[in-house]
Formats: sequence, C-alpha cells, structure tokens
Amino acid sequence: MATISVVGAGSWGTALAIVLADNNHTVKLWARREDLAEEVNEKHTNEKYLPGITLPDGIKATSSLEECVKGSEAILLVTPTKALREVLPELKTYLNNPVTIIHASKGIEPDTSKRISEVIEEEIPESLRKAVVVLSGPSHAEEVSLRHPTTVTVSSKSIEEAEFVQDLFINSNFRVYTNHDIIGVELGGALKNIIALGAGLSDGLGYGDNAKAALITRGLAEIARLGAAMGANPLTFMGLTGIGDLVVTCTSVHSRNWRAGNLLGKGNNLEEVLENMGMVVEGVRTTKAAYYLAKEQNVEMPITSVLFEVLFNNKAAKDGVDQLMGRLRTHETEDLTSLLADRFELNPKEL
Amino acid sequence: MATISVVGAGSWGTALAIVLADNNHTVKLWARREDLAEEVNEKHTNEKYLPGITLPDGIKATSSLEECVKGSEAILLVTPTKALREVLPELKTYLNNPVTIIHASKGIEPDTSKRISEVIEEEIPESLRKAVVVLSGPSHAEEVSLRHPTTVTVSSKSIEEAEFVQDLFINSNFRVYTNHDIIGVELGGALKNIIALGAGLSDGLGYGDNAKAALITRGLAEIARLGAAMGANPLTFMGLTGIGDLVVTCTSVHSRNWRAGNLLGKGNNLEEVLENMGMVVEGVRTTKAAYYLAKEQNVEMPITSVLFEVLFNNKAAKDGVDQLMGRLRTHETEDLTSLLADRFELNPKEL
Repeated sequence: MATISVVGAGSWGTALAIVLADNNHTVKLWARREDLAEEVNEKHTNEKYLPGITLPDGIKATSSLEECVKGSEAILLVTPTKALREVLPELKTYLNNPVTIIHASKGIEPDTSKRISEVIEEEIPESLRKAVVVLSGPSHAEEVSLRHPTTVTVSSKSIEEAEFVQDLFINSNFRVYTNHDIIGVELGGALKNIIALGAGLSDGLGYGDNAKAALITRGLAEIARLGAAMGANPLTFMGLTGIGDLVVTCTSVHSRNWRAGNLLGKGNNLEEVLENMGMVVEGVRTTKAAYYLAKEQNVEMPITSVLFEVLFNNKAAKDGVDQLMGRLRTHETEDLTSLLADRFELNPKEL
Repeated sequence: MATISVVGAGSWGTALAIVLADNNHTVKLWARREDLAEEVNEKHTNEKYLPGITLPDGIKATSSLEECVKGSEAILLVTPTKALREVLPELKTYLNNPVTIIHASKGIEPDTSKRISEVIEEEIPESLRKAVVVLSGPSHAEEVSLRHPTTVTVSSKSIEEAEFVQDLFINSNFRVYTNHDIIGVELGGALKNIIALGAGLSDGLGYGDNAKAALITRGLAEIARLGAAMGANPLTFMGLTGIGDLVVTCTSVHSRNWRAGNLLGKGNNLEEVLENMGMVVEGVRTTKAAYYLAKEQNVEMPITSVLFEVLFNNKAAKDGVDQLMGRLRTHETEDLTSLLADRFELNPKEL
C-alpha cells in the first residue's frame, strides 16, 4: 500500500481520498483551512463539501502543504485550476525525489491556453516528478463518496505511470480505464464544461430536453473539432471523458457549470451568477480560453462563441440559444466526417 | 402546401401532425378509435396522449384509413412497429399513384430483424411508393407540441425524397437535417431504446448518474458496433439520431423505455412492468431482435445481452448491472478504434 497526498479538500478531492483510503492506502489530505483539517481529523466529516458522509479513518488531514506532500509516493492535485500557479511553486520546494503527479482538475488556463498537465510540467522540474497522469470521467463526487458505481479514465504520456495510477484507484465500485491520448482526455474534461453552461442556459430558458440533446450533440462535435486541431484523437471524445462526462454534466443538477448556465438563462448576469454560486465555475474560464484557442486554431465553435458573447458581452441568453438552434448545418455528419477524413487522410466521399 | 396523411394518433403522431399543420399543410390524422377522431375534430384535443394541448384547426381526424390516405401526397406512418404488418396491407389497397412514405417509428421487427423501412418496402409495392423516408432524432412529443426547439434528421435512399420531407416539416422551432445513411439513422433510433431500458434499470437500482453515464457511453459503442456490422456508417451514431436521441431517452422521465427499465430495476418483472405501463415499450421487442442479430453478426453487445437475460430469463436486475460495471474493458477506445479501423481499412496503431 502506498502513501498518497491529496492536495485539495473540496468535494472531488475528498471523494477521491475516500476511494484511496478504501483501497487501504495512507492518505494525507491537504485543506487550506485549519478548521477543515481539524474537522476531518476529529469528526471524520467534510460537511461543507460532502454533507452526510463519514470519512474513513485512513484519511489524515493537515493544513500544512509540506506535511501533506513530504515522503509520499504520489501526489494527487485537485485544486481549482486557478490555484495551481500558487500551490505548485510552494509544493515543489518540499520534493526531493521524482514523484508521481496525478491531477483531477478540469480546465484550460485562460491566458496561456495550456492544459493542466502542461502547467504542472512547467512548474515542477522534470527531476522532481515522473510523467504527469490525468484522472477524468463522468463522476459526481457525491456519488463516489456513496460508493455508487463509477467509471473514470487515467491517461499519461507514460503508459506505465497511467497503469500505476489505475492500480492505486481501482476497486469494485470505482472502475479505472487507461487511454493513451492525454491531450484528448484533458480537453474533453475541460471543454465539456462549456457545453454544460450552454445546456444550463437552455434549461434556464425553459427550452426542454429536445433542445438540450441538440446542444449536447453539436457540443460534442465542436469539442472534438477543437481537440483534433490541438492534437487529440477525435475518438477519445466518444469515450468516458468525452460523451460520458458531457452527459453527466449536462443532465444533472449536481453540476455547478449547469447550475451557473441555468441561472444565466433565468436572466441573471455573470456577476450575479458567480456571487450566487459561491464556488469556482470552471466553465466560465474555459469558455474564454476556448474562444481564443478556436480563433487561433481557426476552428468553428458556434456554441462556445455564443456563450462567450452571453458571458462577457451582455448578449441576451435567449438570442444566443435561438441563434444556435437556427444555424445548425443542414447535413449533420458533415463535421465529424471531415474531421476524421482530415486525420486519416481519407476522401470524405468514402465515409 | 401539401395534403399529408398521418397514420397513428398517439403522442408522436399527433405532435408531428401539429408541426405539419403549423406549416399550413392539410393534415389528415388517422385514429383507430372513432371517439378519439371525434375528440380531435370537435374539441381539438388529444387528452390521453397530449394532455393540455390545443390542436390547430388544420388537423382533421378520421377513423377510416381509406379516408385518411386517399389523395395524399405523402403518408407519415407513426404506429407502433407491431401494428405495421396489419396496417400496411390495408393501406396499400387505397393507393393508386406512387406516394412518399415517411415513417417515424423506432424499432426492429423481432422475428425478421428487419428495419422499419424494409418492412414498408416489403408491404407496399414499388409501383405505389417513392423511396421510403425515415424521420428520427431527440424529440419528446410533448415538447414538440409546445413548439420547444427540436432538431431531427430525415434519411432515405433517395436524397431528393429526404429533401422533400425536410421541406414539409422544417420551421423555426422544428429544425430538420438530412443524412444519407438510412441504415444508421433507423438503427440508432431503434437500438437506443435498449440502452434506455438499461439506464432506467440502473436508476431503478439507485445507482446514480455516474453509472448511467458509463452505460450511455458503452451503450453507444455497442450500438455503433452492431450498426457497422449491418452496413451503417459508425459516424451516424455520433449525430442527432445516435447520441442525441440516446441522451434524451436515457435522461428524461418522459421516456417510456426508461420508465420500463426503472420499474424493472425496482424489482418488478416484465409482465408487471408491461401491465403497469399500459403502452407499447418498443425497447423490449428491440432487445430481443438485437440480441439475436448480434449473435448472427458475431458482434459483442454486453448491455443488450444482460438486458435480454433480465427481461426474458429472470436474471436479477442488480446482478445484471453489477456484471456490466465489472466487465468493461481496460482500454476504453479499443472498440471504436477497431470499428473505424475495420471500416476504413486502417491499421489500429495509426489511430
């Protein structure tokens, strides 16, 4: 059994700590707030983020990042993407030997357009880490903490590292698959939050399941398009970290990106929404990042563009969704067909 | 404007009749029951199937199939798939000239494994019809009748016929796309009902959104696998009639296949479920058809097999879903990769 640091005690970090503790690993959980660390250690709860759940004894919390990461075989990062540039420079000062770094954050850095594993590679020198591993998939924290059946994917440039992480997490409720395409896995997890905002928007306007299904379908095509331009395998978007995660995020009231979109659709502006949520809404940052990435890569992303206008340029939500429903192409497989044709150098007529 | 017969006055037939009437076509709606035809003509309602909706004056109902179909430019079939072999032999006796036949039924005939357009081609001689057109996509009837934004796909062996039907239906709320792959469009609509049963089963067991997302993702792969073996383009399953319809059917309480699965998951047997529903559950017939088709085509369909056992061989629902969660493959893109590799004669290593 291994000693594993979990950096971030929000709902997802705590839920993953439960999985690791269930597998008899020693888990050191870092909570920025001292009182939360105490709550975890004394009451074995994290009421704010996982109400009603009793945490296994194997989870020991600390508010000292140094105490959390020293001597661990693997470090799991589950902070909001915004916090990474603050946490990593401190974290690296506590490392002596190359450690496995796993992350389970979903986002793209707005100003640099970097994926999370790229941010980590930039902040932690190669001498202090092994290949970065991402863990992603359709997984509400609440359900994982209740040991409901859940499937996720791990991916890394190093298949050995991915398999090491698979072994750390896998158990009978928490099924872990490997995928070689780290670009596609990271982008799927990040970009799906944009479509979840759009789905929430449509629901907030009262448009119903038919409209939402159209948004999800077109959203997936648009995600795959940007992903392919950035080097991902388009097929990754058809898997757990693509469709799977997209569906769960767009159709569940647990999803904070959906909830934020829903509030926007009901007529609130971005400021009011963020205030009301009181939590990080990754999709908002990701929409901005993807909007500029799409321009840079010359990729058409109609849903992302409309959301960008609604979020940052005061476009009315209703006008945005109506525009999307009106503009869809006439021949529906066009996009994916040409995407795969490009990638595999086929003649679209063959498809 | 055209005169169009709508054969079948259930919720979907009536909703499509509304779309056609909104587009100023003359719509003749066939209801088997005389009292329903009267209700439509006198009260402009269909309370049993579309409660609370006022039907446009342009819809005239009749319980005479002859009166319904005579002199129409197009006939839209929206009966349960089971009824087609009864209705079509009578219907053809009223035809004189080749007519456009559209169908919006989702299923596969259990004993023959035929798609609906094949059943129609078999029953209506070529001299009396043009190319059959299918209309399919993520579309709850209730929402269509409320003019909520909805997208569907039409497909046919003849692109001209598909475009003719696209023009009949398209308006600002009801967006219609064309797709050349009639096999894929018909199979997507039919097979998704199997996965909806599975999703309902998982929900009935209380397994949550993570498990359901896994089932949807794996379900799509399994549908695409059988579809490809039967000559469909695997990419069709990534569109509105694949993912789109799958998502809407698996995540909405409107869906009768989901509801049937949900009752099974709660411990009812098939007989009790069908009695409780009081409506046709296409997914049950389709599971049987697909189970034998998969054997015949030598295609692996784990979700379909488990459902077959639960529906027809008294397997416990919980054992079935647990078996599915345990057996998923370790490397997730394996299936789709090899599917596309087969189709396009690529080396899987390239993908």
